[in-house]
Amino acid sequence: MALIAPKMTAPHPFDEAIALTCQEDGQFIGHTSAPYGNFVGPFGGISAAQMLNAVLLHPQRLGDPVSLTINFCAAVADGAFSIQARPARTNRSTQHWVIEMFQAGETVLTATAVTAVRRTTHSLGEATMPVVPSPEDTASPPRFAPMQWLKRYDIRFIQGGFPEALDDTDAGHSLTQVWLRDALGRAMDFASLAAISDAFFPRLFLRRARFVPVGTVSMTIYFHAQAEQLTQVGGGFILGQAQGQHFQNGFFDQTAQLWSQSGEMLVTTHQTVYYKE
Amino acid sequence: MALIAPKMTAPHPFDEAIALTCQEDGQFIGHTSAPYGNFVGPFGGISAAQMLNAVLLHPQRLGDPVSLTINFCAAVADGAFSIQARPARTNRSTQHWVIEMFQAGETVLTATAVTAVRRTTHSLGEATMPVVPSPEDTASPPRFAPMQWLKRYDIRFIQGGFPEALDDTDAGHSLTQVWLRDALGRAMDFASLAAISDAFFPRLFLRRARFVPVGTVSMTIYFHAQAEQLTQVGGGFILGQAQGQHFQNGFFDQTAQLWSQSGEMLVTTHQTVYYKE
Repeated sequence: MALIAPKMTAPHPFDEAIALTCQEDGQFIGHTSAPYGNFVGPFGGISAAQMLNAVLLHPQRLGDPVSLTINFCAAVADGAFSIQARPARTNRSTQHWVIEMFQAGETVLTATAVTAVRRTTHSLGEATMPVVPSPEDTASPPRFAPMQWLKRYDIRFIQGGFPEALDDTDAGHSLTQVWLRDALGRAMDFASLAAISDAFFPRLFLRRARFVPVGTVSMTIYFHAQAEQLTQVGGGFILGQAQGQHFQNGFFDQTAQLWSQSGEMLVTTHQTVYYKE
Repeated sequence: MALIAPKMTAPHPFDEAIALTCQEDGQFIGHTSAPYGNFVGPFGGISAAQMLNAVLLHPQRLGDPVSLTINFCAAVADGAFSIQARPARTNRSTQHWVIEMFQAGETVLTATAVTAVRRTTHSLGEATMPVVPSPEDTASPPRFAPMQWLKRYDIRFIQGGFPEALDDTDAGHSLTQVWLRDALGRAMDFASLAAISDAFFPRLFLRRARFVPVGTVSMTIYFHAQAEQLTQVGGGFILGQAQGQHFQNGFFDQTAQLWSQSGEMLVTTHQTVYYKE
């Protein structure tokens, strides 16, 4: 399923977006990225990738990501930011991280992460990939929203696409199945896997067929795949599935899974989202 | 469904377990609790409740819990601990917390939490309560494990109880449905709701019918219920449902829901668990 990447002399916008410079005090300096802009501020997935990258680049890191929780404390303003990533506890094979992003001296994101050196064990899938048409048999939708970050992905809805009519009728469920890949065929790694875990539009839009102000408050990603599996994925399609569980008094949650096209579980992820009405 | 609480002159062991004393430097001091002991160290749910309680007792707290992520960095030793709860960001109606538990100068737990002042909005359930027999028609199992914390709950499995034979056969799924309540009828609140969110035994035991060393690494709880709904639950039964999603190379995840007996969604929760084999 390898996609032939176009010849690029310039770096991929994702790599530019997550680039961090380590300062003498150990803090990382980065900058928001216009190509990953959302309605207001950056795409949450790129913020997650930046926070994770501070761990990935940290000289004391042990192992690969197992979990990441990111809390969106305030709107990230366009411009520079600093990230502090602290290994709060290092064990023999696991490591616990506390991460914080600052702008103008104030906290805008907090996160925790677990990394681990993983050993090969007996493995079992339980949330198995649904049987769906291939990406080649799935149409790319017309542009459904103006955000820049959407242009960074090739998005093909199998079901549960962005509602055509926002007519405020209860759809009865909020299930989306969608093929996703990097629009330029960038090969997948842990940082881009973190970003794409946030590629599902808010379930409330689908369930309610209603557009209201929303914002993810907290997102958790469990990384099941190992680095060699991501290498196998390369620039190919992955299958995403997302569904809401409960919408109540200003917050709803959604749960999602990402599989490689060959059916390997890459990520399970959850988020709670603020909504205003 | 209110249960008549027995007359107690002593405080409930849960209240003793989560009791914290605020020091002059703002740190909270607490102590592990033998009645909530696990195989090794404390029941993870009581640790979650202690971490949340540092937020609940904090003089700067705004609103009620929306989400909590707790990371189990190292075994909590029997004895005293300190907790630092820091409001990293306070907005108009939401607040972001970074929480850390220390023993002997080392980090043993990290956590983040979101609290919010919630407004009444249009609400929709999507993960609705399954149709199951009533708690009165569901048997309490014989004691299936020796841990102290299990005695603190009335646990009645509808399906997916602790496997009777650990014969290493693949059960094909790891679904549990179970009625749960405090054994002494203590009225539910946010702290006890956090604790009971961790009451599901590791899905690997059920899926594999195999007992291996396990330990939760990270757990996230999304609180859907408001305080008045918890008051309604009181000391009554709640329905829990849990299932694993993927088991691979030393870590598996499980997802769970908790409903009041009348069918109101209280919590959705997820965890990733280390296993050794």
